[in-house]
Amino acid sequence: MRPIALLTDFGLTDPYVGQMRAALTRLAPGAVLIDVSHQVEPFATGQAAFFLAASAPHFPADSVFLCVVDPGVGSPRRIIGANVSGQDFLAPDSGLLGLLLDTPSLQGTRLYDLTKATSGYAGSATFHGRDIFAPLAARLSAGEDLSALGSPLDPAQLVRHPWAAPRPDAEGVDAHVLHVDRFGNCVLSLREGFALTREVAGLSLAPGERLGLRRVRTYADLGPGEPGLLKGSQGFFELAANQAPAATLLTLRPGDPVRILYAED
Amino acid sequence: MRPIALLTDFGLTDPYVGQMRAALTRLAPGAVLIDVSHQVEPFATGQAAFFLAASAPHFPADSVFLCVVDPGVGSPRRIIGANVSGQDFLAPDSGLLGLLLDTPSLQGTRLYDLTKATSGYAGSATFHGRDIFAPLAARLSAGEDLSALGSPLDPAQLVRHPWAAPRPDAEGVDAHVLHVDRFGNCVLSLREGFALTREVAGLSLAPGERLGLRRVRTYADLGPGEPGLLKGSQGFFELAANQAPAATLLTLRPGDPVRILYAED
Amino acid sequence: MRPIALLTDFGLTDPYVGQMRAALTRLAPGAVLIDVSHQVEPFATGQAAFFLAASAPHFPADSVFLCVVDPGVGSPRRIIGANVSGQDFLAPDSGLLGLLLDTPSLQGTRLYDLTKATSGYAGSATFHGRDIFAPLAARLSAGEDLSALGSPLDPAQLVRHPWAAPRPDAEGVDAHVLHVDRFGNCVLSLREGFALTREVAGLSLAPGERLGLRRVRTYADLGPGEPGLLKGSQGFFELAANQAPAATLLTLRPGDPVRILYAED
Repeated sequence: MRPIALLTDFGLTDPYVGQMRAALTRLAPGAVLIDVSHQVEPFATGQAAFFLAASAPHFPADSVFLCVVDPGVGSPRRIIGANVSGQDFLAPDSGLLGLLLDTPSLQGTRLYDLTKATSGYAGSATFHGRDIFAPLAARLSAGEDLSALGSPLDPAQLVRHPWAAPRPDAEGVDAHVLHVDRFGNCVLSLREGFALTREVAGLSLAPGERLGLRRVRTYADLGPGEPGLLKGSQGFFELAANQAPAATLLTLRPGDPVRILYAED
Repeated sequence: MRPIALLTDFGLTDPYVGQMRAALTRLAPGAVLIDVSHQVEPFATGQAAFFLAASAPHFPADSVFLCVVDPGVGSPRRIIGANVSGQDFLAPDSGLLGLLLDTPSLQGTRLYDLTKATSGYAGSATFHGRDIFAPLAARLSAGEDLSALGSPLDPAQLVRHPWAAPRPDAEGVDAHVLHVDRFGNCVLSLREGFALTREVAGLSLAPGERLGLRRVRTYADLGPGEPGLLKGSQGFFELAANQAPAATLLTLRPGDPVRILYAED
Repeated sequence: MRPIALLTDFGLTDPYVGQMRAALTRLAPGAVLIDVSHQVEPFATGQAAFFLAASAPHFPADSVFLCVVDPGVGSPRRIIGANVSGQDFLAPDSGLLGLLLDTPSLQGTRLYDLTKATSGYAGSATFHGRDIFAPLAARLSAGEDLSALGSPLDPAQLVRHPWAAPRPDAEGVDAHVLHVDRFGNCVLSLREGFALTREVAGLSLAPGERLGLRRVRTYADLGPGEPGLLKGSQGFFELAANQAPAATLLTLRPGDPVRILYAED
């Protein structure tokens, strides 16, 4: 059985994750189940998209990802299957796969519309994670191919979030905060491979404002109360501080715009 | 080894769940462990009873449920074993099994008093989940029968919660809120099989008050800010809203009374 | 494969635990993974040290513990390996192993500096749990010995917390609160084996103050609103109340000093 990775906004208080894992234990006995997170904010497809894009490279090469952040559950929204570099992804068509599919290094993506695979469905109208996605994930885990579960889908038809691509110019780069983690690190919409063409020297969070900012390798390179820019562990640049929450230091929240400024010549 | 399902109010911060799972890994090596939830509110046996009744049907048919919400730990309260439709349940006699045992479709319930199975016990006086329930669950997982662990118990001797059965009349049904989930859905004490004899048209949360209420199939059938009544995924009717918390919209909490009103002729 | 126990301050919202478990699934396929806790307060090495010392005795005798509460990640702080009574422990040199190593009953501790085992490391500078500790844990799980991964280390070189040893005198014992759990129980820095030489009769939380305090076996032995002293389940004495949070009743927090008073002759 292929391992199954789980990513939802179900939380860990209600018995929803337990019921979904129980269904998978029945339908895919022996499959290793690995939680990416179940504490995505309710309906926060953008946060889930970041968690997924950041996590997939660290999961087993044959993983099946069962992703449910699904504001439109029960409505006629599509169910998507994607094979990306060998891993399979199941998700409602809610924008959840967007950041993953935009990863520059990816190759060989195949997309499928699996909505019809659930015709004749007799489960609940409100808990497709347990009643629709888990059975589909079990079939993939057992060796079925995505192509057997649906029909090919044109990537242009997917719901996409308007991910603001970073906008570089001569003096710096405009980006935004993708996610604030438990430690207050602010993950930016700047992928690790993004080329900062000159030395970083400042940060602007509002027109006319300019804070000092150093590019460093790790948190310990920073002094107390000093913000830094570093390549984090999630494939993106982060604003961080040393043993302190950068989000508090800089008053930043997910979605906030930031401008990285280069040193003047 | 039979799979073991875990339901407690231990939370996920303290190392209690880890120690209980460690004990099960030692005593029942190879058994699949599935968490129903560990974030039941402390001592909230009613919430736990709902989680259990809602979840059991989705778990493997041979599951052993280890349930610990135990305000009287260390006192001479009974330890209960129940075999219900082939699944085994271990719990303190705190009312935790009540809603499960009241499920109309259930058949073939056998109840046992397991208190004596723990005589000669040398573990802690305050953590029976790890030191008493886990060893009992391991024995059941390995194939022992409940009847070998204790003596038959008369169901009338169980501690029962005064579950307010729904009270139907000519104009509607009185019920109460069993649980408010992460999304603000309000699960009612109306089982999915309850026959609403006429078209639903209103909701009353206080004497003389009447709000509009539509019966719908799923969240997406509702307009913005409109409350709906639907068959949820947990075996009970729910009050819900579309991508918004019905509990906030209607100012409802667990235990609150609600009156569903039929359309006038 | 030896079982791997996980203890971190990563929380359960970010995908960090999932990525670490995914790495372990790839590198140590088949190893049982058991979470001690991932909700240690950020950087709270003292809380983690308590969780570890309290939990290790309940875990399988051949467990490998992967512990990451690491304020100095990315700096040249040591990586420690310890073999204690047959179990292996991996941790940054942040004081995390202190309370465990001070356990009176332990025998046969071997300590190693594993920092060099990671030379040539190509992973992230900020997520050593996934990129350094998980690969080391996988090697131990597969059967390698700690001695093969590093060089012996003098225990005197370890970073140690200034654990305030309890100070007994003729009238009582001074100790402090190690941890407040979900139920408000206050775990004290008094190990279960500490000899209280006379009958306990009072508690002093401030100079000149004296509250009544009874020593009891379990919570149910206490009356409403009455604080008690009991041997808890974690290897230490606790201040507790009956179905109520002692921490609220006594206004206690982790680190607070407490004085247990003996009965007068």
